[in-house]
Amino acid sequence: MSADELPSWRETTAKQSIVEFVAAVTDPDSPDFIPERDRIAVFDNDGTLWTEQPVYAQLVFALDRAAELGHPTSLEELHAGGMEALTKLVALTHAGITTEEFDALCRNWLASARHPRFGRPYPATVYQPMVELLGLLDRNGFTCWIFSGGGTDFMRSWTADGYGLPPHRVIGSVGETEFRVGDGGPELVKTAKVAIINDGPQKPSSIHRHVGQRPAVAAGNTDGDLAMLQWTAASPYRTLELIVHHTDGDREYAYDRDPILGSGTGQILAAAAEHKWTVIDMAADWAAIHPDA
Amino acid sequence: MSADELPSWRETTAKQSIVEFVAAVTDPDSPDFIPERDRIAVFDNDGTLWTEQPVYAQLVFALDRAAELGHPTSLEELHAGGMEALTKLVALTHAGITTEEFDALCRNWLASARHPRFGRPYPATVYQPMVELLGLLDRNGFTCWIFSGGGTDFMRSWTADGYGLPPHRVIGSVGETEFRVGDGGPELVKTAKVAIINDGPQKPSSIHRHVGQRPAVAAGNTDGDLAMLQWTAASPYRTLELIVHHTDGDREYAYDRDPILGSGTGQILAAAAEHKWTVIDMAADWAAIHPDA
Repeated sequence: MSADELPSWRETTAKQSIVEFVAAVTDPDSPDFIPERDRIAVFDNDGTLWTEQPVYAQLVFALDRAAELGHPTSLEELHAGGMEALTKLVALTHAGITTEEFDALCRNWLASARHPRFGRPYPATVYQPMVELLGLLDRNGFTCWIFSGGGTDFMRSWTADGYGLPPHRVIGSVGETEFRVGDGGPELVKTAKVAIINDGPQKPSSIHRHVGQRPAVAAGNTDGDLAMLQWTAASPYRTLELIVHHTDGDREYAYDRDPILGSGTGQILAAAAEHKWTVIDMAADWAAIHPDA
Repeated sequence: MSADELPSWRETTAKQSIVEFVAAVTDPDSPDFIPERDRIAVFDNDGTLWTEQPVYAQLVFALDRAAELGHPTSLEELHAGGMEALTKLVALTHAGITTEEFDALCRNWLASARHPRFGRPYPATVYQPMVELLGLLDRNGFTCWIFSGGGTDFMRSWTADGYGLPPHRVIGSVGETEFRVGDGGPELVKTAKVAIINDGPQKPSSIHRHVGQRPAVAAGNTDGDLAMLQWTAASPYRTLELIVHHTDGDREYAYDRDPILGSGTGQILAAAAEHKWTVIDMAADWAAIHPDA
């Protein structure tokens, strides 16, 4: 492995733990060797692979679309209305259209929307060091998957370009779809019925359903990712657990609480200390946050 | 493509339609060319890739396990009890154990159980011509998936060996699993709550959720596969729809009704006639049914 496969990582223990792990599990003579078919890596998305502050991109999309549909609502009203208001917003903006129409809406929105602080399209707020990590793992025979609380269809509209991941390896929360043979032929219509909220203990269940193998690498950033990291850590193979810790208020955001759902980092940081998982200190460990403009 | 890549297929129009389709969609100079990333093929399992008569292997497994657990029941009692009895049997035999325990149970059972007529293990009742087709598609850049009404976990215990498909490409009906940190560490426990019955119009929804792309090839054998074939046929690409028609009472079984769930073939054969889909006449088109003993 050449040293500059992770050029946006500083030469700290976080990078060393990754480089050493990959070298060990891909070396057929190492006791830690993992056969290629079992090299599964799972990543949370929001706050782990891209910026989630100040407001999730998908929520901004929903608010923009609600306004377009003649039902404008503000973030403040949404906060005040709690889960009921959020459910109504999702039903209004994510249902009653075909999967293909929704995909086109997402792509259009992503092409024009800009992050309020960084002034760039949301897909350009991916974390450059994590994109390099995805590439490093891929070149070393790992199959990388996303297991996120975000909507599957929303993510898939940009993750192929953003991370180079095929749609089937991007799994999030999902609503039921309904098959019907309409005027335009067979189509799938998105409904307001939520099938899976892919957070917390649901993540290992989703990994079992979608992958059917236990991961050897897992990365997250909040307590909502704890179960996924625990499930990974209990593999019979040597494993690597990564926690992206948001310590960089200058270059990104410094916080220990998820901006909307309120999930904290207390449990996952405690587990990291107990099990010697790798905590990535964004301010100290990353030479760059986002890709060059 | 060498002619003997499908040696168990007779030189009939069914084989010709497959060979001609694959040649056209993989030829970059053809108007029918499909880029490799979009070469998705989906297959039903029971009755399409392996023998489902006289009784689904998974149901025999459940009856055997119920007897082992001290609750013997017969196929006749099950028929008389309808869906309620079936649900009880599934809860008894498929829930309350971890995913790893269940996998071990399936593997043990499959190693000892024998098909009542053919006297061979159930995984040796795969259709040799279809196994050859999976291989042909794979070598031509297709990604093959199973979307079956059978249980995902039961199928995955043998489909890697049986068809060479990794677990994530074998999708069936699923029960909820519950993540818990037990005495033996983190584990997933199978519950009696059915999450998905993967039949009929659910198949396109499951394909959207698990693949996120529209297939170019689809194969099934009953009306429960119609929606999957319709969804495939509506792709903007040239597509291939295959229906395995059970016409061979001598070498296998001749029937037009699914043995347990009662799904027929009337709708799918009518659609095949209307849209010129390829109907595989097992007696006429296949030189062999099962692999050599």
